[in-house]
Amino acid sequence: MTLDLAQDPVDLTAALVDVESVSGAEAPLADLVETALRALPHLDVVRDGNNVVARTRLGRDRRVLLAGHLDTVPIADNLPSRRGGDRLYGCGTSDMKSGDAVLLHLAATLPDPAYDLTFVLYDNEEVEADKNGLKRLVETRRDLLEADLAVLMEPTSGQVEAGCQGTMRVRVTLPGRRAHSARGWLGDNAIHAAAPLLTTLSRYEARDVEIDGCTYREGLNAVRVDGGVAGNVIPDACTVLVNFRFAPDRSVEQAEEHVREVLAGYAVEVTDAAPGALPGLSAPAAAHFVTAIGTTPTAKYGWTDVARFAALGIPALNYGPGDPNLAHTREEHVEVARITAATDALRSYLS
Amino acid sequence: MTLDLAQDPVDLTAALVDVESVSGAEAPLADLVETALRALPHLDVVRDGNNVVARTRLGRDRRVLLAGHLDTVPIADNLPSRRGGDRLYGCGTSDMKSGDAVLLHLAATLPDPAYDLTFVLYDNEEVEADKNGLKRLVETRRDLLEADLAVLMEPTSGQVEAGCQGTMRVRVTLPGRRAHSARGWLGDNAIHAAAPLLTTLSRYEARDVEIDGCTYREGLNAVRVDGGVAGNVIPDACTVLVNFRFAPDRSVEQAEEHVREVLAGYAVEVTDAAPGALPGLSAPAAAHFVTAIGTTPTAKYGWTDVARFAALGIPALNYGPGDPNLAHTREEHVEVARITAATDALRSYLS
Repeated sequence: MTLDLAQDPVDLTAALVDVESVSGAEAPLADLVETALRALPHLDVVRDGNNVVARTRLGRDRRVLLAGHLDTVPIADNLPSRRGGDRLYGCGTSDMKSGDAVLLHLAATLPDPAYDLTFVLYDNEEVEADKNGLKRLVETRRDLLEADLAVLMEPTSGQVEAGCQGTMRVRVTLPGRRAHSARGWLGDNAIHAAAPLLTTLSRYEARDVEIDGCTYREGLNAVRVDGGVAGNVIPDACTVLVNFRFAPDRSVEQAEEHVREVLAGYAVEVTDAAPGALPGLSAPAAAHFVTAIGTTPTAKYGWTDVARFAALGIPALNYGPGDPNLAHTREEHVEVARITAATDALRSYLS
Repeated sequence: MTLDLAQDPVDLTAALVDVESVSGAEAPLADLVETALRALPHLDVVRDGNNVVARTRLGRDRRVLLAGHLDTVPIADNLPSRRGGDRLYGCGTSDMKSGDAVLLHLAATLPDPAYDLTFVLYDNEEVEADKNGLKRLVETRRDLLEADLAVLMEPTSGQVEAGCQGTMRVRVTLPGRRAHSARGWLGDNAIHAAAPLLTTLSRYEARDVEIDGCTYREGLNAVRVDGGVAGNVIPDACTVLVNFRFAPDRSVEQAEEHVREVLAGYAVEVTDAAPGALPGLSAPAAAHFVTAIGTTPTAKYGWTDVARFAALGIPALNYGPGDPNLAHTREEHVEVARITAATDALRSYLS
């Protein structure tokens, strides 16, 4: 199998979706992308693990970077892709293989762009920050990421979304004491001890924060729970993994302080965290892109790798055809018209 | 390695404890027991899976059956066994390898007992009822279990414990809807939905029930919880396994009805259940044993296989040297004096 990058980006999206690439298993898709990009004479291609980076070297004054991740969340009975009317359904259609398709199609069909271009496809975005492929590039191949503006093709329904929220995961360990379940009163049930914690989480009132005209909406959620020893034992162990999504006016340290305050009295351990990014709409390169695309920027809720570019001093925005509200759902899909529209808008900006 | 069944039952207990035999992995211990019993000319031995049954055929008027399970709950950093003063520590010391040691020692050293004797060592007692080795014998080798009285060597601290409570496990499935955790308000968190369920369980007021002078104390406990999809997904799945221990005045059907009433509104599915056994102290064979051992019978809290003998019409009691309050704990141990006392009392009764 080979990928035809020049084909209609809608068909290219379906082709990318149909190559399963749950986080950690991106190799087959990275192989296909690498092979297809290496066939293009106007691009220099670097493979790094399951990251693939392709660049023009035209000597232009400015360089624009387009980036997308190759991985998806676990399949939920939603592969292979399926066309239904004006929509394409399937795992990754919105988050973010439609964005990858736009990026790859432009890589193949814009041999003479107005700016030098860098295309970055990377792995492990949907899991712990430590595994993130772009993080690895920042640490080991910073040179490949030089740019005057970075556009991340995360799902934004064709809008320009500014900055991003931060994210932090903490593990809460509940205390308990084992006993035979026929004599429950001799033990302390660690699973029962999670009741007030889960009540606190379900009643948590999240902040709405407005910055540069963009409203960020926070959230605090249990994303995993695991407890129990055996079917006849009062368990002495139960852990709850909690995910805090926080507005970019909080630093990671302030976010941790807040979580520890909300979960006061519990044994809390931070497992991973990534800072948010302020909207940064005053940077000239960002403002120019916004004008060219012609929409009003809004807040990005999900954490995205714009935060990594922001930390490198590179203005960065989210812009992609997928629908962020459908990301990670069983019924994930993308409006095919948005794929075409994003391709046209970016082609016009880059030509 | 071979087992010396004639050695001091305290040392024999340590030897049995030091052969790991967590449920499902009893084969090495069953092999040792089988080999040791086959070396005794006065016993007929049958091996059935990891069950081992040994019988005398002396033509006595009455037959007494002694039974013990070979398996333990999972190790909790408590192997190998360790002698500390008058106690022997380690996984299975109380539940119920000290009972097995008494049984096996008597099998080896009572070639001419007053009753015909049947010794039953069986597997998979500490897990789902469907795997229980004694259940398998009831279904496929009922003939091996013929007896006028069955004594189960479950931990009773040297007391005679009458009847047993029933046990039932139900799986509760919490509803939810997936969403990206950065947009938690678009999903329904199935883990948060467990909060009121766990609150109900932790506030449950258990009954105390008195029958034939024995008090049975019920309990309703979560013994396992599992929920979550990925670290950035509002989960649409969370399950809680709940164990109900019920007094023998309730049938399995009545126990299920009660659980469904307490957990009204939740999706509840019964995964396994075993009826309790009424004390049955009025049966002559049971009364005779109680008189011979010379203690006042009390209620058995834990479900035990006396219920299977009761269902076959065989009077059955629990009597063993282990401490039921230490069963399934990290600090499990047995008072060595109780091993010696139980051996002496049973030897006197059977001689």
